[in-house]
Amino acid sequence: MFSTVLIANRGEIALRVARTCRELGLRTVAVHSTADCDAAVVRFADQAVQIGPPAPRRSYLNIPAVIEAARTAGADAIHPGYGFLSEDPDFAQICADHDIVFIGPPPQVMQQLGNKAVARELMAEAGLPLLPGSTRPVNDLDHARAVAAATGYPLVIKAAAGGGGRGITVVRDPADLAQAWTTTRRTAQNVFGDSRVYIEKYLERARHIEVQVLVDQHGNGVHLGERDCSVQRRHQKLVEEAPAVGLSPAQRAHIGELAVQGALAVGYTGVGTLEFLMDEQGSFAFMEMNARIQVEHPVTEMVTGLDLVREQILVAAGEPLGIRQPDVVFTGASIECRINAEDPSRDFLPTPGLLSVFDVPGGPGVRIDTGYRAGAVVSQHYDSLLAKIVTWAPDRERAVARMSRCLSELRVDGPGVATTRELHQDILASETFRSGRHHTGFLDGAGSPLHLQATAGGKI
Amino acid sequence: MFSTVLIANRGEIALRVARTCRELGLRTVAVHSTADCDAAVVRFADQAVQIGPPAPRRSYLNIPAVIEAARTAGADAIHPGYGFLSEDPDFAQICADHDIVFIGPPPQVMQQLGNKAVARELMAEAGLPLLPGSTRPVNDLDHARAVAAATGYPLVIKAAAGGGGRGITVVRDPADLAQAWTTTRRTAQNVFGDSRVYIEKYLERARHIEVQVLVDQHGNGVHLGERDCSVQRRHQKLVEEAPAVGLSPAQRAHIGELAVQGALAVGYTGVGTLEFLMDEQGSFAFMEMNARIQVEHPVTEMVTGLDLVREQILVAAGEPLGIRQPDVVFTGASIECRINAEDPSRDFLPTPGLLSVFDVPGGPGVRIDTGYRAGAVVSQHYDSLLAKIVTWAPDRERAVARMSRCLSELRVDGPGVATTRELHQDILASETFRSGRHHTGFLDGAGSPLHLQATAGGKI
Repeated sequence: MFSTVLIANRGEIALRVARTCRELGLRTVAVHSTADCDAAVVRFADQAVQIGPPAPRRSYLNIPAVIEAARTAGADAIHPGYGFLSEDPDFAQICADHDIVFIGPPPQVMQQLGNKAVARELMAEAGLPLLPGSTRPVNDLDHARAVAAATGYPLVIKAAAGGGGRGITVVRDPADLAQAWTTTRRTAQNVFGDSRVYIEKYLERARHIEVQVLVDQHGNGVHLGERDCSVQRRHQKLVEEAPAVGLSPAQRAHIGELAVQGALAVGYTGVGTLEFLMDEQGSFAFMEMNARIQVEHPVTEMVTGLDLVREQILVAAGEPLGIRQPDVVFTGASIECRINAEDPSRDFLPTPGLLSVFDVPGGPGVRIDTGYRAGAVVSQHYDSLLAKIVTWAPDRERAVARMSRCLSELRVDGPGVATTRELHQDILASETFRSGRHHTGFLDGAGSPLHLQATAGGKI
Repeated sequence: MFSTVLIANRGEIALRVARTCRELGLRTVAVHSTADCDAAVVRFADQAVQIGPPAPRRSYLNIPAVIEAARTAGADAIHPGYGFLSEDPDFAQICADHDIVFIGPPPQVMQQLGNKAVARELMAEAGLPLLPGSTRPVNDLDHARAVAAATGYPLVIKAAAGGGGRGITVVRDPADLAQAWTTTRRTAQNVFGDSRVYIEKYLERARHIEVQVLVDQHGNGVHLGERDCSVQRRHQKLVEEAPAVGLSPAQRAHIGELAVQGALAVGYTGVGTLEFLMDEQGSFAFMEMNARIQVEHPVTEMVTGLDLVREQILVAAGEPLGIRQPDVVFTGASIECRINAEDPSRDFLPTPGLLSVFDVPGGPGVRIDTGYRAGAVVSQHYDSLLAKIVTWAPDRERAVARMSRCLSELRVDGPGVATTRELHQDILASETFRSGRHHTGFLDGAGSPLHLQATAGGKI
């Protein structure tokens, strides 16, 4: 086992990782930009190293600065969190070159999964069902037209190097294909530095079901159940839960087995997530695999009792899994709401600024993951996630009631700061969500909580 | 089911109760003294009523003011929390006289259990084992001498109307009996308004094991497992955990059955706690029964997944238990640390004042119950409990590691404010506690974490 872990991230996930490191008796090194000198993880970690100015490219994405901090602080492992360098195979390789353990899958596996078109191809070979579409990047418009004709409309053009819900265009009419093709390639180039795109059938009323897998370096893999992340706005998840409501035990077992099968086939190690779409008939199709811890991992921790960051660390240290599939027991239901500093009435404009009030809920069945506290400042340089509120209860109805209670308890205020708290309250109160009939298009529909929010003047 | 619950308490337990009420869809009414206008529960509740000046007798113990608030606010039930009016049978009777449901056991049962000497007698009749001693109040010194001679030394003289660890005197030498007798009776009269005392054998190295029971109004009772509360200072609990380390499954089942047997025998309803001492040979002896929710109830909630306040409310509403004994499943281990605003280096002098910094831990397996936040003021008028930190993990070792992590994360500061945080860190780090060899005399021993703290100058 290594002795010192550098956490190459910020915000709630950096603190999340540092907490588990301390519980394992590992020394922690936080790196931070000049905007984050006062962050919770900076205070909590055993050592903190300032690595650059606020702009991510000059700090949290600055590989030489991170590696130098690790060497200076004597870190023998790096946890990348999510976002930033977490899915950069070059970074993972550079860690290895410096004899630093990268807490994540092997670089070559990350490389393959990072190209979503290649990932589709690999998972098809592994026997996983896919949606109709291309199985490799579509390199010219004529090729795109041919694939589109074979796939049928509506379809979606996606950046092969994409992630986080960006570089995705839905096309409903063949007449729009050329324009969408050009736009998506441009976005892909601008955001991900890689213009390659691929095409997939688009499902209007699908559910986003993802499976958490855990694989060691010795060929043992288990799944830790599924999460439903269908409540999305522009492909950004807002509410996640485990288990997915309405799946039969057979469906649940089936998708879990598919996920482990896929992860083992591509040589994955550590914790990872296979994202599927489930159509209205209950059929699953593989979408992509995320080679990192995910924002929504706590709901899985709540229903399994496992600490996924601990598992990541143990696997990275070479330990064999301590559990087999029958040891994974699922209890109750868990929901996560991502509370963002954004104004729903102004198209979710981020509202950075001072948090003069920041009172989070607590009590039975409640978990809070946040990097903020009263008096902290939300920086314009980073994402607008304020806090993850996670509830657990013996059943979904009570987990929802508990979340509603938590949202009624949350108090955030500051000059110019708006939050998504009320939107979450409306989502949880909606009959569609309560009855489990939500799907990925839920929030876009007329009369959805989102549309009601957008016209409500964005009061907090 | 009633519709509006008045919470006749303050601090963390008032907020705790209000949270569950909201989850159940019940309207909440907070009552508060003029010192608590800005309390978390006052903000959270649907309605708040100021009932008097800070002194408890004039507000939280002021029965006419509480009843008047309930009538004015249309409350059809009252939850008394712990302390204050929670074990006052007169108050329970007055509620009934006003057609307000008192969320607790029947007044006559409270009356009997409130006299610890009578409770001993009743539980002996119910077949529970007792320590040697008196089975009714000892009314004169000659009687005390006779009982003491039959009981043997060391023994303990206890206030019959006592509770909260007050009115208890250990006597090791017959020559000290008369003085202890006089002192304890005087304390009993001053603190509880009742000078009656009784005598029990004193065990030097016993463990405090208590069992949570839940009984409905239809004669159904279950136990929810045991808690170990052996880490005490002057009979005040500091650290509690579930399950009790080192009990065999047979011992665990035995003490659970004894507790249900006792609760049913005395006609108890709702949630209650039977406190036992376990001697070094593993034998149990009933000590007393507490007819209310207890401070340490969260550790039971963590290992059972149940919400004890919810269960209290459902039982008070006349609903039959939704669970039978085999439905109560215990998972993992949970620990609670009571963080107090007290200075261990000054004999635990309370340190009321402004909390300029109040950052509580969070993340996986952590529950926080507190009525405070940064900027709040700890009043000199009430107990010094700042927060209950509760951790859960799959096993005790990890629950302890998680608690140590939480204590390292907790930050409390303010002019003149000291806390018991470091004492808890030292207790959790001690080999005696880690190995589960602690007992009720643990902290009093030379070289114990308490003695080390007392000489360390009380730095926070």
